[in-house]
Amino acid sequence: MTNTIRIIGIDPGLRRTGWGVIETLGNSLRFVASGTVTSDSEMDLASRLCQLHDGLAEVIHQYRPDEAAVEQTFVNKDAVATLKLGQARGVAMLAPARAGLPVAEYAPNAVKKSVIGVGHGEKQQIHMMLKILMPKAEFKGNDAADALAIAICHAHNRGGERFRKIMAG
Amino acid sequence: MTNTIRIIGIDPGLRRTGWGVIETLGNSLRFVASGTVTSDSEMDLASRLCQLHDGLAEVIHQYRPDEAAVEQTFVNKDAVATLKLGQARGVAMLAPARAGLPVAEYAPNAVKKSVIGVGHGEKQQIHMMLKILMPKAEFKGNDAADALAIAICHAHNRGGERFRKIMAG
Repeated sequence: MTNTIRIIGIDPGLRRTGWGVIETLGNSLRFVASGTVTSDSEMDLASRLCQLHDGLAEVIHQYRPDEAAVEQTFVNKDAVATLKLGQARGVAMLAPARAGLPVAEYAPNAVKKSVIGVGHGEKQQIHMMLKILMPKAEFKGNDAADALAIAICHAHNRGGERFRKIMAG
Repeated sequence: MTNTIRIIGIDPGLRRTGWGVIETLGNSLRFVASGTVTSDSEMDLASRLCQLHDGLAEVIHQYRPDEAAVEQTFVNKDAVATLKLGQARGVAMLAPARAGLPVAEYAPNAVKKSVIGVGHGEKQQIHMMLKILMPKAEFKGNDAADALAIAICHAHNRGGERFRKIMAG
Protein backbone atom coordinates (compact mmCIF):
# COMPACT_ATOMS: atom_id res chain seq x y z
CA MET A 1 0.00 0.00 0.00
CA THR A 2 1.55 3.24 -1.10
CA ASN A 3 -1.41 5.55 -0.70
CA THR A 4 -1.66 8.11 2.04
CA ILE A 5 -4.40 7.09 4.45
CA ARG A 6 -5.99 9.63 6.76
CA ILE A 7 -7.13 8.22 10.11
CA ILE A 8 -9.27 9.71 12.87
CA GLY A 9 -8.79 8.30 16.36
CA ILE A 10 -11.59 8.90 18.87
CA ASP A 11 -11.44 8.65 22.67
CA PRO A 12 -15.11 8.71 23.71
CA GLY A 13 -16.50 10.30 26.85
CA LEU A 14 -19.82 11.98 27.65
CA ARG A 15 -18.22 15.13 29.05
CA ARG A 16 -15.22 15.23 26.71
CA THR A 17 -14.56 13.21 23.57
CA GLY A 18 -11.01 13.52 22.24
CA TRP A 19 -10.20 13.26 18.55
CA GLY A 20 -6.95 13.16 16.58
CA VAL A 21 -6.36 13.03 12.84
CA ILE A 22 -3.12 11.66 11.37
CA GLU A 23 -1.86 10.53 7.98
CA THR A 24 0.07 7.36 7.35
CA LEU A 25 2.15 6.54 4.28
CA GLY A 26 3.97 3.22 4.58
CA ASN A 27 5.74 3.45 7.92
CA SER A 28 5.65 7.23 8.26
CA LEU A 29 3.15 9.13 10.36
CA ARG A 30 2.09 12.75 9.99
CA PHE A 31 0.10 14.81 12.45
CA VAL A 32 -2.90 16.62 10.93
CA ALA A 33 -5.02 17.98 13.79
CA SER A 34 -6.44 17.13 17.21
CA GLY A 35 -9.00 18.48 19.62
CA THR A 36 -11.81 17.79 22.02
CA VAL A 37 -15.58 17.86 21.57
CA THR A 38 -17.37 18.70 24.81
CA SER A 39 -20.97 18.45 25.96
CA ASP A 40 -22.72 20.81 28.34
CA SER A 41 -23.31 18.96 31.64
CA GLU A 42 -26.19 21.35 32.43
CA MET A 43 -28.18 19.98 29.49
CA ASP A 44 -30.24 16.78 29.30
CA LEU A 45 -28.61 13.57 28.11
CA ALA A 46 -30.18 13.49 24.63
CA SER A 47 -29.00 17.06 23.91
CA ARG A 48 -25.49 16.21 25.14
CA LEU A 49 -25.33 13.18 22.83
CA CYS A 50 -26.45 15.47 20.02
CA GLN A 51 -23.61 17.90 20.84
CA LEU A 52 -21.05 15.08 20.70
CA HIS A 53 -22.48 13.74 17.43
CA ASP A 54 -22.62 17.12 15.73
CA GLY A 55 -19.13 18.07 16.94
CA LEU A 56 -17.60 14.85 15.62
CA ALA A 57 -19.57 15.06 12.36
CA GLU A 58 -18.14 18.57 11.86
CA VAL A 59 -14.56 17.38 12.49
CA ILE A 60 -15.06 14.49 10.04
CA HIS A 61 -16.54 16.85 7.46
CA GLN A 62 -13.60 19.25 7.89
CA TYR A 63 -10.70 16.74 7.85
CA ARG A 64 -12.22 14.00 5.65
CA PRO A 65 -10.53 10.96 7.20
CA ASP A 66 -10.62 7.62 5.33
CA GLU A 67 -10.87 5.38 8.38
CA ALA A 68 -11.78 5.68 12.06
CA ALA A 69 -10.57 3.94 15.23
CA VAL A 70 -12.19 3.97 18.67
CA GLU A 71 -10.91 2.67 21.98
CA GLN A 72 -12.67 -0.39 23.40
CA THR A 73 -13.16 0.73 26.97
CA PHE A 74 -14.74 -1.06 29.88
CA VAL A 75 -15.56 0.64 33.13
CA ASN A 76 -15.95 -1.97 35.79
CA LYS A 77 -16.39 0.14 38.87
CA ASP A 78 -20.09 0.87 38.51
CA ALA A 79 -22.93 0.22 36.08
CA VAL A 80 -24.03 3.87 35.92
CA ALA A 81 -20.59 5.05 34.73
CA THR A 82 -20.37 2.16 32.25
CA LEU A 83 -23.80 2.95 30.80
CA LYS A 84 -22.86 6.64 30.50
CA LEU A 85 -19.62 5.79 28.69
CA GLY A 86 -21.48 3.31 26.48
CA GLN A 87 -23.92 6.01 25.38
CA ALA A 88 -21.08 8.38 24.43
CA ARG A 89 -19.22 5.55 22.75
CA GLY A 90 -22.28 4.57 20.68
CA VAL A 91 -22.51 8.11 19.37
CA ALA A 92 -18.72 8.31 18.81
CA MET A 93 -18.88 5.20 16.63
CA LEU A 94 -22.07 6.26 14.85
CA ALA A 95 -20.70 9.63 13.65
CA PRO A 96 -17.89 8.15 11.46
CA ALA A 97 -20.07 5.17 10.43
CA ARG A 98 -22.78 7.54 9.16
CA ALA A 99 -20.09 9.31 7.12
CA GLY A 100 -19.27 5.97 5.47
CA LEU A 101 -15.97 5.32 7.30
CA PRO A 102 -14.96 1.84 8.48
CA VAL A 103 -14.64 1.96 12.28
CA ALA A 104 -12.02 -0.25 13.99
CA GLU A 105 -11.92 -0.96 17.72
CA TYR A 106 -8.80 -1.47 19.84
CA ALA A 107 -8.36 -2.56 23.43
CA PRO A 108 -6.67 0.05 25.68
CA ASN A 109 -3.55 -2.09 26.19
CA ALA A 110 -3.18 -2.51 22.41
CA VAL A 111 -3.24 1.28 22.06
CA LYS A 112 -0.58 1.74 24.74
CA LYS A 113 1.56 -1.04 23.24
CA SER A 114 1.66 0.62 19.84
CA VAL A 115 2.71 3.98 21.29
CA ILE A 116 4.91 3.21 24.29
CA GLY A 117 5.84 -0.41 23.56
CA VAL A 118 4.12 -1.93 26.59
CA GLY A 119 0.47 -2.44 27.55
CA HIS A 120 0.55 -0.14 30.57
CA GLY A 121 2.02 3.27 31.25
CA GLU A 122 1.48 6.79 32.49
CA LYS A 123 -0.29 9.53 30.55
CA GLN A 124 3.03 11.42 30.62
CA GLN A 125 4.75 8.61 28.74
CA ILE A 126 2.09 8.68 26.03
CA HIS A 127 2.50 12.47 25.62
CA MET A 128 6.28 12.08 25.33
CA MET A 129 6.11 9.25 22.81
CA LEU A 130 3.56 11.11 20.67
CA LYS A 131 6.09 13.93 20.39
CA ILE A 132 8.81 11.46 19.36
CA LEU A 133 6.60 9.62 16.83
CA MET A 134 5.12 12.84 15.42
CA PRO A 135 7.32 15.85 16.30
CA LYS A 136 4.74 18.29 14.93
CA ALA A 137 1.89 16.84 16.99
CA GLU A 138 -0.15 19.35 18.93
CA PHE A 139 -2.63 18.30 21.56
CA LYS A 140 -4.21 19.90 24.56
CA GLY A 141 -5.06 17.50 27.36
CA ASN A 142 -5.24 13.75 27.77
CA ASP A 143 -8.33 13.15 25.63
CA ALA A 144 -6.79 14.52 22.44
CA ALA A 145 -3.48 12.73 23.22
CA ASP A 146 -5.30 9.42 23.76
CA ALA A 147 -7.20 9.92 20.51
CA LEU A 148 -3.91 10.42 18.62
CA ALA A 149 -2.54 7.25 20.26
CA ILE A 150 -5.64 5.34 19.04
CA ALA A 151 -5.09 6.68 15.52
CA ILE A 152 -1.43 5.57 15.63
CA CYS A 153 -2.48 2.14 16.87
CA HIS A 154 -4.78 1.81 13.86
CA ALA A 155 -2.02 3.02 11.50
CA HIS A 156 0.19 0.18 12.79
CA ASN A 157 -2.50 -2.48 12.64
CA ARG A 158 -4.74 -1.63 9.70
CA GLY A 159 -4.68 -4.04 6.81
CA GLY A 160 -3.30 -6.75 9.08
CA GLU A 161 -6.33 -8.53 10.46
CA ARG A 162 -4.14 -11.22 12.00
CA PHE A 163 -1.93 -8.74 13.80
CA ARG A 164 -4.89 -6.61 14.84
CA LYS A 165 -6.47 -9.56 16.61
CA ILE A 166 -3.25 -10.26 18.50
CA MET A 167 -3.03 -6.62 19.56
CA ALA A 168 -6.66 -6.45 20.68
CA GLY A 169 -6.58 -9.83 22.48
CA MET B 1 -53.53 21.30 27.26
CA THR B 2 -56.12 20.26 24.71
CA ASN B 3 -53.85 19.50 21.79
CA THR B 4 -53.22 16.00 20.56
CA ILE B 5 -49.64 15.03 21.34
CA ARG B 6 -47.95 12.23 19.47
CA ILE B 7 -45.38 10.30 21.50
CA ILE B 8 -42.77 7.72 20.49
CA GLY B 9 -41.62 5.31 23.18
CA ILE B 10 -38.31 3.53 22.59
CA ASP B 11 -37.00 0.37 24.29
CA PRO B 12 -33.33 0.28 23.28
CA GLY B 13 -31.28 -2.84 22.60
CA LEU B 14 -28.37 -3.57 20.26
CA ARG B 15 -30.03 -6.59 18.68
CA ARG B 16 -33.62 -5.32 18.82
CA THR B 17 -34.90 -1.83 19.60
CA GLY B 18 -38.65 -1.65 20.14
CA TRP B 19 -40.67 1.43 19.26
CA GLY B 20 -44.29 2.42 19.79
CA VAL B 21 -46.16 5.54 18.71
CA ILE B 22 -49.31 6.71 20.51
CA GLU B 23 -51.43 9.84 20.64
CA THR B 24 -52.68 11.43 23.82
CA LEU B 25 -55.50 13.98 24.12
CA GLY B 26 -56.26 14.87 27.70
CA ASN B 27 -56.71 11.51 29.44
CA SER B 28 -57.37 9.48 26.30
CA LEU B 29 -54.77 7.34 24.56
CA ARG B 30 -54.78 6.19 20.96
CA PHE B 31 -52.53 3.57 19.39
CA VAL B 32 -50.80 4.69 16.18
CA ALA B 33 -48.14 2.10 15.34
CA SER B 34 -45.43 -0.10 16.83
CA GLY B 35 -42.53 -2.21 15.64
CA THR B 36 -38.97 -3.31 16.10
CA VAL B 37 -35.74 -2.10 14.52
CA THR B 38 -33.14 -4.84 14.35
CA SER B 39 -29.41 -4.89 13.70
CA ASP B 40 -27.49 -7.65 11.94
CA SER B 41 -25.34 -9.46 14.53
CA GLU B 42 -23.00 -10.60 11.75
CA MET B 43 -21.95 -7.01 11.10
CA ASP B 44 -19.43 -4.89 13.02
CA LEU B 45 -20.62 -2.73 15.90
CA ALA B 46 -20.46 0.64 14.09
CA SER B 47 -22.57 -0.69 11.20
CA ARG B 48 -25.10 -2.15 13.65
CA LEU B 49 -25.42 1.21 15.44
CA CYS B 50 -25.96 2.80 12.02
CA GLN B 51 -28.76 0.31 11.28
CA LEU B 52 -30.48 1.18 14.57
CA HIS B 53 -30.09 4.92 13.98
CA ASP B 54 -31.34 4.81 10.39
CA GLY B 55 -34.26 2.55 11.30
CA LEU B 56 -35.41 4.85 14.11
CA ALA B 57 -34.85 7.97 11.98
CA GLU B 58 -37.12 6.43 9.33
CA VAL B 59 -39.86 5.64 11.89
CA ILE B 60 -39.64 9.22 13.24
CA HIS B 61 -39.78 10.63 9.73
CA GLN B 62 -42.83 8.48 8.90
CA TYR B 63 -44.88 9.01 12.08
CA ARG B 64 -43.70 12.52 13.05
CA PRO B 65 -43.98 12.25 16.84
CA ASP B 66 -43.83 15.45 18.95
CA GLU B 67 -41.98 13.96 21.91
CA ALA B 68 -39.89 10.88 22.70
CA ALA B 69 -39.44 8.74 25.82
CA VAL B 70 -36.74 6.15 26.49
CA GLU B 71 -36.38 3.64 29.31
CA GLN B 72 -33.58 4.27 31.81
CA THR B 73 -32.09 0.80 32.03
CA PHE B 74 -29.22 -0.48 34.08
CA VAL B 75 -27.66 -3.87 33.56
CA ASN B 76 -25.72 -4.82 36.64
CA LYS B 77 -24.72 -8.35 35.81
CA ASP B 78 -21.68 -7.55 33.70
CA ALA B 79 -19.86 -4.53 32.31
CA VAL B 80 -19.74 -5.85 28.74
CA ALA B 81 -23.55 -6.18 28.55
CA THR B 82 -24.01 -2.76 30.16
CA LEU B 83 -21.60 -1.11 27.71
CA LYS B 84 -23.39 -2.81 24.79
CA LEU B 85 -26.79 -1.60 26.00
CA GLY B 86 -25.37 1.88 26.61
CA GLN B 87 -24.17 2.10 23.02
CA ALA B 88 -27.60 1.16 21.66
CA ARG B 89 -29.25 3.50 24.13
CA GLY B 90 -27.02 6.43 23.09
CA VAL B 91 -28.08 5.93 19.48
CA ALA B 92 -31.76 5.45 20.48
CA MET B 93 -31.70 8.82 22.26
CA LEU B 94 -29.72 10.54 19.53
CA ALA B 95 -32.14 9.69 16.71
CA PRO B 96 -35.14 11.61 18.15
CA ALA B 97 -32.88 14.39 19.52
CA ARG B 98 -31.42 14.96 16.04
CA ALA B 99 -35.00 15.26 14.75
CA GLY B 100 -35.59 18.06 17.26
CA LEU B 101 -37.76 16.06 19.70
CA PRO B 102 -37.45 16.47 23.46
CA VAL B 103 -36.39 13.10 24.92
CA ALA B 104 -37.63 12.09 28.40
CA GLU B 105 -36.21 9.21 30.43
CA TYR B 106 -38.14 6.94 32.78
CA ALA B 107 -36.98 4.29 35.22
CA PRO B 108 -38.28 0.76 34.45
CA ASN B 109 -40.41 0.63 37.61
CA ALA B 110 -42.03 3.98 36.69
CA VAL B 111 -42.96 2.51 33.30
CA LYS B 112 -44.49 -0.59 34.90
CA LYS B 113 -46.33 1.52 37.48
CA SER B 114 -48.04 3.63 34.84
CA VAL B 115 -49.25 0.57 32.91
CA ILE B 116 -49.94 -2.13 35.48
CA GLY B 117 -50.21 -0.02 38.65
CA VAL B 118 -47.20 -1.51 40.44
CA GLY B 119 -43.44 -1.24 39.91
CA HIS B 120 -42.94 -4.92 39.10
CA GLY B 121 -44.79 -7.45 36.98
CA GLU B 122 -44.64 -10.04 34.26
CA LYS B 123 -44.38 -9.29 30.54
CA GLN B 124 -47.76 -11.01 30.18
CA GLN B 125 -49.38 -8.45 32.50
CA ILE B 126 -48.00 -5.56 30.44
CA HIS B 127 -49.37 -7.10 27.22
CA MET B 128 -52.81 -7.53 28.82
CA MET B 129 -52.93 -3.99 30.23
CA LEU B 130 -51.84 -2.50 26.90
CA LYS B 131 -54.87 -4.16 25.31
CA ILE B 132 -57.14 -2.72 28.03
CA LEU B 133 -55.65 0.80 27.84
CA MET B 134 -55.55 0.81 24.02
CA PRO B 135 -57.90 -1.85 22.58
CA LYS B 136 -56.63 -1.25 19.05
CA ALA B 137 -52.97 -1.66 20.02
CA GLU B 138 -50.99 -4.06 17.86
CA PHE B 139 -47.55 -5.24 18.83
CA LYS B 140 -45.39 -8.20 18.02
CA GLY B 141 -43.06 -9.27 20.80
CA ASN B 142 -41.88 -7.79 24.09
CA ASP B 143 -39.74 -4.97 22.68
CA ALA B 144 -42.62 -3.24 20.88
CA ALA B 145 -44.91 -3.83 23.90
CA ASP B 146 -42.33 -2.32 26.25
CA ALA B 147 -41.91 0.65 23.93
CA LEU B 148 -45.68 1.28 23.99
CA ALA B 149 -45.61 1.07 27.80
CA ILE B 150 -42.83 3.70 27.84
CA ALA B 151 -44.90 5.97 25.58
CA ILE B 152 -47.92 5.56 27.90
CA CYS B 153 -45.73 6.36 30.92
CA HIS B 154 -44.68 9.58 29.22
CA ALA B 155 -48.31 10.42 28.31
CA HIS B 156 -49.17 10.15 32.02
CA ASN B 157 -46.21 12.15 33.23
CA ARG B 158 -45.44 14.74 30.58
CA GLY B 159 -45.98 18.34 31.58
CA GLY B 160 -45.62 17.43 35.24
CA GLU B 161 -41.94 17.85 35.97
CA ARG B 162 -42.57 17.36 39.68
CA PHE B 163 -44.46 14.12 39.18
CA ARG B 164 -42.01 12.89 36.59
CA LYS B 165 -39.17 13.15 39.07
CA ILE B 166 -41.13 11.19 41.66
CA MET B 167 -41.89 8.48 39.12
CA ALA B 168 -38.28 8.25 37.96
CA GLY B 169 -36.85 8.35 41.51
